[in-house]
Amino acid sequence: METAHGDILTPVFMPVGTAGSVKALSPDDLHATGAQIILGNTYHLYLRPGTDIIHQGGGLHQFIHWDKPMLTDSGGYQVFSLGELNQINMDSVTFRSHLDGSLHTLSPEISILIQRELGADICMAFDECTPWPATQTEVQESLKRTHAWEKASLKAFRQGAPLYDHRQHLFGIVQGGTYPELRRASAAVITALDFDGFAIGGLSVGEPKSAMFEMTELVTELLPENQPRYLMGVGKPEDLVEAVSLGVDMFDCVLPTRNARHGILFTWDGPLVVKAGRHKADFQPVSESCRCYTCQNFSRAYLRHLFNANEVLVLRLASLHNIHFYQELMAAMRTAILDDNFVEWKRQFLSRYHDIPVEVDS
Amino acid sequence: METAHGDILTPVFMPVGTAGSVKALSPDDLHATGAQIILGNTYHLYLRPGTDIIHQGGGLHQFIHWDKPMLTDSGGYQVFSLGELNQINMDSVTFRSHLDGSLHTLSPEISILIQRELGADICMAFDECTPWPATQTEVQESLKRTHAWEKASLKAFRQGAPLYDHRQHLFGIVQGGTYPELRRASAAVITALDFDGFAIGGLSVGEPKSAMFEMTELVTELLPENQPRYLMGVGKPEDLVEAVSLGVDMFDCVLPTRNARHGILFTWDGPLVVKAGRHKADFQPVSESCRCYTCQNFSRAYLRHLFNANEVLVLRLASLHNIHFYQELMAAMRTAILDDNFVEWKRQFLSRYHDIPVEVDS
Repeated sequence: METAHGDILTPVFMPVGTAGSVKALSPDDLHATGAQIILGNTYHLYLRPGTDIIHQGGGLHQFIHWDKPMLTDSGGYQVFSLGELNQINMDSVTFRSHLDGSLHTLSPEISILIQRELGADICMAFDECTPWPATQTEVQESLKRTHAWEKASLKAFRQGAPLYDHRQHLFGIVQGGTYPELRRASAAVITALDFDGFAIGGLSVGEPKSAMFEMTELVTELLPENQPRYLMGVGKPEDLVEAVSLGVDMFDCVLPTRNARHGILFTWDGPLVVKAGRHKADFQPVSESCRCYTCQNFSRAYLRHLFNANEVLVLRLASLHNIHFYQELMAAMRTAILDDNFVEWKRQFLSRYHDIPVEVDS
Repeated sequence: METAHGDILTPVFMPVGTAGSVKALSPDDLHATGAQIILGNTYHLYLRPGTDIIHQGGGLHQFIHWDKPMLTDSGGYQVFSLGELNQINMDSVTFRSHLDGSLHTLSPEISILIQRELGADICMAFDECTPWPATQTEVQESLKRTHAWEKASLKAFRQGAPLYDHRQHLFGIVQGGTYPELRRASAAVITALDFDGFAIGGLSVGEPKSAMFEMTELVTELLPENQPRYLMGVGKPEDLVEAVSLGVDMFDCVLPTRNARHGILFTWDGPLVVKAGRHKADFQPVSESCRCYTCQNFSRAYLRHLFNANEVLVLRLASLHNIHFYQELMAAMRTAILDDNFVEWKRQFLSRYHDIPVEVDS
C-alpha cells in the first residue's frame, strides 16, 4: 500500500493510539518495534483535546509527532459502545460524551470533516457497528443506515479536500452481523462504491470465533483482489494468522498493549504471565530470541518486580515487547507469503504457539 | 569522584530510583538526560523484591541494567518515615513493613550486608534521621544512637568485602537537627572516622529553609575539603544553587520526577504547570532552548492533552524533561565553577528563575 507518509508492506498490524498515544509508547519506541502505521480514534480525539486543537496544531501527525502513515476510524464504533446514545436517525446520531455527559451529533459529513481535521492517511466511512447478538431484522435495519451513511461519507469525502499537504484515502466497511446473506448484500453495495479499500466491521464483538472466520472468509472472497482488506479489531496472534490465510491485509487491536499492561507478554510459544510468582528469580529474558529493548536488557524477574512495585516503567517495557512481537509476527507472515511457504509456516506456527486462558478487560 | 563504574563530575544530582527504577525512565532515558549516578533505596529493595533476589540476579546494577555509578542509602530514613516502628535500641531497630506489616530488624551490620548484596558503588552508614521539630535532648539521644550505629557500620564495612567484582565506598552522615552545637559535635565524631565521603542528613524534613542553609553552611565548613559532601534529600533548583555555593558536591531528591508526574516542568524561568488550561493550544515546547527528547518533539498542548487523558506516556516525557533540566543545571554550575564565575552565574540564575507555590505530596 502506498500513502503520502510512506509505503506499507502487508499484511500489516496497526497499533492503536486511541487518544493520540499508543499507550505507554513514544513515536521512537514505535519505530523501534517496526510499526508501519498506527490508528487514532476519531471519537476520543474529537471529545478530547478536540479536533480544533489538533487542527491548530497542524493535524494529528504533527500534534503527536508521528511521521509515518496513520489511519483514523469514523467514530461510529465508540459512539455506539461508549457514548450514551440519545437519538439515531437516518442522517445522524446524537449522543452524550462518556467523559462529561455533554451532547454531540455525529453524521457521515461531520465524521469526514473531523477526519479532514485529523489528517490521517486513511479515513474510514461512518457506519454502525451492529452488536452481537442481533436478530436478522435488527441487522437489516442497521445495514440500511450503514449503507446510507457510507454513501454519504464517500460523497462528502469526494466533495471535500485535505486540509494539509498530503493525500487522504477513504475505506468502506462491510457489515451484516453473522448472517451470510446480509454480509453478501453488504459486500455488493459497498464494493460497488468508489472506496480506496475495504474493511470488515462488526466482528470480534462477542460472536463465536467460528462465526468470525466464516464471515471473514465469505467477505474476503467478495472483495476486490487489488485493494486492501482490513479486519477491524482483530485480534490474538493465532487469529491474525488465520485471517491472513483467508486473505486479510490489515489489522488493528488493543490486545498487545492492553495485555502488556496486565503483565501478559507474547512469545512464539504463547502468552507468558510475567507477573506470576514462578518468575520471581527467573533471570531469563521474556524471549531468548527477541531483539526488542526489553528482552535485550531486562529479565523476567525484574519485569515481575516492576509490576509488583507498580513501577510505571514496566508498562512501557511490556508494551514495547508485545508490539515488537506483533510486528515480528506480521514480518514472518510476509516472508512466508513471498517464499510461497505460508501453509507450512502456519502449520509450524500453530504447532508451537499455545494460547492460555487469560482475559483482561481494560 | 572516581568509582568502579566510572568517574563523576561534581557538583552532581542523583535521580532517585526508589524501587530499582527511576520512576517512568529507562536506563537509556537516564543516559540521555546526562545522569552520572542514580540512587537506590535499601529499605524498599530489601522488602521488595528482596535483596536475595537481587543478589541472585547479579546485584542491583545488573538487575536493573544500570552500568554507571550507583549509591544506596542505609534504609534508616524509610524505617523511621514509612515503617511502623516496633522497637529501637542501641544495636538495632525492629519495624513492621509498610507493605504487609511483616516484622523486620535492621541494624548497622544488616544494613551493610544488604548494601553488599545490592552492590552499589557508594554505601551509606546506618543512621537515625532525626525528625523536625525535636528538642535538644531528643536530638542528643538520637545522636548517641546515630554515632554508635555509624561506627558499627564502618566496622562491619571494613571487615567485610564486596560480593561482586568492584570496589564499594562508605559515606558517613552528620546529624544534629537544627542545633549548631550538636551539628558541630556530630561533625567532629563522624569526620574522625575513616569514611570515604560525608553526608549531611536530617535536613529538608520540614525545618525552615534558613535553618537548612545555616546547618549546611556550618557543617560544610567542618568537613574535609578533599572528600565529597552530600546534602541528602535536597531539593528545588534554587536550593541546589544555594547549597553548591556553600560547598556541597552531591544531591538527591524525588522532586524532579515527582513534580513531573504532576505536570510541573522545570525551565530556566521557573516551574511551568503544563496541565494548566492556558496551554490548551500552546504549541511551543516546554522550553525553546531545551535539547531533551520531549522538548525537541512535543508541544505543551500535546503534553497537557496527555495529562488530561491520563496517558501514561506523559509521565515518561515529563520525567525525562525534568531530570534533563536538573542535569543541565548541574552542568551549568560545574562550568561556572571551572570558569571561576560562580557568583555572577548564581546572580543571573536567581534573577531569571522564579519559583511558584506548587506543592505535591506523592
